[in-house]
Amino acid sequence: MQSNRPLILVTNDDGITAKGIFSLQKTMKEFGEVIVIAPDSAQSGMGHAITINEPLRLKKGDFFDDVESYSCTGTPVDCVKLGIYEILHRKPDLIVSGINHGINASTNVLYSGTMSAAVEGAMEGIPSIGFSLSSFDSDANFENAMEVVRRIVKKVLENGMPKNICLNVNVPDVTFGNIRGIRTCKQAHAFWEDRFDKRTDPFDKDYYWMTGDFVTQDTTQDTDLYWLEREYASIVPTQFDMTAYEAMKVIENWKL
Amino acid sequence: MQSNRPLILVTNDDGITAKGIFSLQKTMKEFGEVIVIAPDSAQSGMGHAITINEPLRLKKGDFFDDVESYSCTGTPVDCVKLGIYEILHRKPDLIVSGINHGINASTNVLYSGTMSAAVEGAMEGIPSIGFSLSSFDSDANFENAMEVVRRIVKKVLENGMPKNICLNVNVPDVTFGNIRGIRTCKQAHAFWEDRFDKRTDPFDKDYYWMTGDFVTQDTTQDTDLYWLEREYASIVPTQFDMTAYEAMKVIENWKL
Repeated sequence: MQSNRPLILVTNDDGITAKGIFSLQKTMKEFGEVIVIAPDSAQSGMGHAITINEPLRLKKGDFFDDVESYSCTGTPVDCVKLGIYEILHRKPDLIVSGINHGINASTNVLYSGTMSAAVEGAMEGIPSIGFSLSSFDSDANFENAMEVVRRIVKKVLENGMPKNICLNVNVPDVTFGNIRGIRTCKQAHAFWEDRFDKRTDPFDKDYYWMTGDFVTQDTTQDTDLYWLEREYASIVPTQFDMTAYEAMKVIENWKL
Repeated sequence: MQSNRPLILVTNDDGITAKGIFSLQKTMKEFGEVIVIAPDSAQSGMGHAITINEPLRLKKGDFFDDVESYSCTGTPVDCVKLGIYEILHRKPDLIVSGINHGINASTNVLYSGTMSAAVEGAMEGIPSIGFSLSSFDSDANFENAMEVVRRIVKKVLENGMPKNICLNVNVPDVTFGNIRGIRTCKQAHAFWEDRFDKRTDPFDKDYYWMTGDFVTQDTTQDTDLYWLEREYASIVPTQFDMTAYEAMKVIENWKL
């Protein structure tokens, strides 16, 4: 890590053996020195979880050609923290997370380990981007997303990132030539109408699988879901300040 | 659940046997019909994690006097989802989460399972409040927080909640008579400077415990940390829209 090229930390939530992170680390080598620290198993839906009640383990491996890489027993956010404070002992120039196997638009940003790794980077003051491909197909072609990844990474390395934010990038599942463009937009307002599939185990005890439908009532035109449906890639600048400033006056008027 | 009293769902992240949820469910009985669905073990730091790769189990128990209660193998957000969609089959009138054993001010809102349960409630359109006591003392007295809890719950039941937000309430660790007031304020800007305590297990393999210092560079006076230090309880109205609207123009100007 003695070069003048940018130092890029790559992580994800689908695990270090996922196809998306393979494509991402390969493309990042065009831009700088790459180090990969990623979960040793799928961590989808882990949100901003960190591991505090159990020990963490790291394993150095030969997961990729010519890239220092580690698998970790923890969450995506653990990977970012271990990367900065235990492995690199300095802040990387860029953190990229993904490419997630599946869409992370709308309120899914809150459940997504991929995006939480990027949000953690923003909290540390590091330019950070989460990338997701809008496909759950087991044969999803992550290379289709790479031209979008290149364009955005290039701009971030040139311009830096506005303070206290990261980027949530979703790419539609079409070949690159058919992506209509890249739109900066807001997080759509939607939620999961959950269902629990109740089953009985061989020992006569009940258990549940969480499933459900993603419901959007957001009919505005400047959202990530709106543009993704129309085969544009979406960028939502994403902040970690969750204060609802507009609601403060209302609560103050309660005269508590 | 046939009464006209409000239906209140109680959860937490410290687990169903924690002292904080015992105090909270007891106080909630003054306001309505109470049902408790909480993790069967400590889930601190789980953030907005949900359980999608493993089955979930629920166990009906006699954890509290005269209160229907369930322990769950999942996260705080799982508890909210199971509560609404599998146990109640309707939306409760209020969700309260806590009382967390330890402060959840500032950016800790992102790591906190207690607060993520409240954020999930907001996403479902349910008035929701996360309560935390600013004490990690094993003898922490949660009853000290109860007068603040009562005042806020009363107002929320009377007035409803502004759309798309929940409340992050932190209470200083002083006897109620010494709490100086309740302030509506913003999430302080701070982050964890992590350290990893590296150890070797009896089998000669390394492992890490995550530890660290909470660092605030926020010197503004209207933050939760500012008021808590001065022995005020803090309320941060908290939203799930993480879009950084002010940064959108900057990204648009990159001409991607």
